Amino acid sequence: MKAIVFDDGLKLDKNYSKPTPQKGEALIRVKLAGICNTDYEITKGYMGYKGILGHEFVGVVEEVNGDDKSLVGKRVVAEISYGCNDPECEWCAKKNYRHCPNRHTLGIWRKDGCFAEYMTMPTNVLFEVPDNVTDEQAVFVEPLAAACEITEQLHIEPMQKVVVLGDGKLGLTTALTLNSQNLDVLLVGKHQNKLDIAAAQGVKTQLLNLFTPEKIYDVVVEATGTASGFETSMALTKPRGTLVLKSTVASGKELNLAPIVIDEITVLGSRCGQFPPALRLLKNHRIDFTPFISGIYSIDDAIEAFEANKSKESIKILIKM
Amino acid sequence: MKAIVFDDGLKLDKNYSKPTPQKGEALIRVKLAGICNTDYEITKGYMGYKGILGHEFVGVVEEVNGDDKSLVGKRVVAEISYGCNDPECEWCAKKNYRHCPNRHTLGIWRKDGCFAEYMTMPTNVLFEVPDNVTDEQAVFVEPLAAACEITEQLHIEPMQKVVVLGDGKLGLTTALTLNSQNLDVLLVGKHQNKLDIAAAQGVKTQLLNLFTPEKIYDVVVEATGTASGFETSMALTKPRGTLVLKSTVASGKELNLAPIVIDEITVLGSRCGQFPPALRLLKNHRIDFTPFISGIYSIDDAIEAFEANKSKESIKILIKM
Repeated sequence: MKAIVFDDGLKLDKNYSKPTPQKGEALIRVKLAGICNTDYEITKGYMGYKGILGHEFVGVVEEVNGDDKSLVGKRVVAEISYGCNDPECEWCAKKNYRHCPNRHTLGIWRKDGCFAEYMTMPTNVLFEVPDNVTDEQAVFVEPLAAACEITEQLHIEPMQKVVVLGDGKLGLTTALTLNSQNLDVLLVGKHQNKLDIAAAQGVKTQLLNLFTPEKIYDVVVEATGTASGFETSMALTKPRGTLVLKSTVASGKELNLAPIVIDEITVLGSRCGQFPPALRLLKNHRIDFTPFISGIYSIDDAIEAFEANKSKESIKILIKM
Repeated sequence: MKAIVFDDGLKLDKNYSKPTPQKGEALIRVKLAGICNTDYEITKGYMGYKGILGHEFVGVVEEVNGDDKSLVGKRVVAEISYGCNDPECEWCAKKNYRHCPNRHTLGIWRKDGCFAEYMTMPTNVLFEVPDNVTDEQAVFVEPLAAACEITEQLHIEPMQKVVVLGDGKLGLTTALTLNSQNLDVLLVGKHQNKLDIAAAQGVKTQLLNLFTPEKIYDVVVEATGTASGFETSMALTKPRGTLVLKSTVASGKELNLAPIVIDEITVLGSRCGQFPPALRLLKNHRIDFTPFISGIYSIDDAIEAFEANKSKESIKILIKM
């Protein structure tokens, strides 16, 4: 089968072995997949991962290795981490597979990813996509779940002021998701065209150079991934407020953490999320991801797709199998 | 009056003007005061503060400028920050004066400190010291309150595992305080003689070089004040656990915050605390600070006292007025 493989370099392998589902796994024919910044980071060495890339997809189950065949023929998405399922594992017991110390993570850690014609995943992390959700929307369920994760971790009160810093796909998705939960959100970014996407769906927006930083926000979401964005986020968080760290900050400079202590700020690391709330948002058409799509490439043009993903103009590049 | 003043250099001023209490303030004759690392940081430029140093003390009220004279003659301690008391100020309404944007902080910010024969403070931040608490114990109420602050901010469950990193006065006080609340605390440090102080009062202790770092702690308190201590703290915090940042980390090197996101750690900045719970611990003799006292100096020997405070062997140096 065709697969996009990272192993020193990035390449399209046209003769990769089609995977065989292990006990409890499904064989999935991938329909559509999305390139995430994490994929790009992996090509620079992140996690030391080698294998098929990709963790955002929608596909159809062709086969199940197990007694329950009910998913066969169904259109599905998959939470990207699966755990050991040892009865003693507190994380697996809570379905928080992403924290299981023996986890596998699709296209990131010990598990071939979804940029291929076929893939396998355990059936217990698969979710059926509602009929009224298109492939082009469903392929966004993973980053959408990561945005939903914030309100799984943190109770944001309706009168609290929230600001999201950064208008890349992470910031846009986060702002739209919090807005879809009727929270008072302001999105601040550098790109009017990206801010317009959020504004068109009801989010308050502000260009960074017109934004007056004030220490008045109960919740600040750092979604720039830069050290200076982290410092600005600290300056915006009111005393005893919460700074949600959504992206790993590539430091490159010394960080002064004193404001965290002086203002008794909570810095909350936030990663992936569970899929049901994200699928609920999609089913109810609370967010439209159509304006995020900057291009759809055939898997045959995968290298070109990765190049397009590097452009500052791109939001999301999709790959069709 | 005699006062220890920082103004470029540190000096003992024998003719400083005795302060006059403003409306709502008490005039306090200082009996005993403690040197804190913050005082030392101020002499290196922290907060840009100039004036009388010191914020840890016990004294006697000599005069009150106001109708209620009930505190006159009473032995008192004082929370170090007082606010604007504007009815619109959310922080003053909650008696969280330390976050009032217009606050004054004793010996740190816009308010002469306690290293002097006399000082003034608003009566609403004064607390009477119970008769059964000696001056030598009462003088520790401010750092003790800062340790009590952790359980004001964070619910630590009785079955959770807590580790305190660092056996300086901050780490020792924190470990003893959490232990006094019947929590499961391990103190890790480099100095057997300091660990022994905590161990003698029931705290589990471990020398750093015999300690096996494991990512198993629900709550990690960083009390080393070093960048490497912060990094070790991140490595000890289990997924979704809390890293309490008690001291401002003098960075000096790049920090990689990625573990915060990957493990969804909460970093909780924690500063000063309210005094009633700390006074309750002292009244009930839950902690004995006697072994912390490395020396008691007369105010006439204040410069020598500051030198003694720099020694790694010192825990707490007191100054008698």
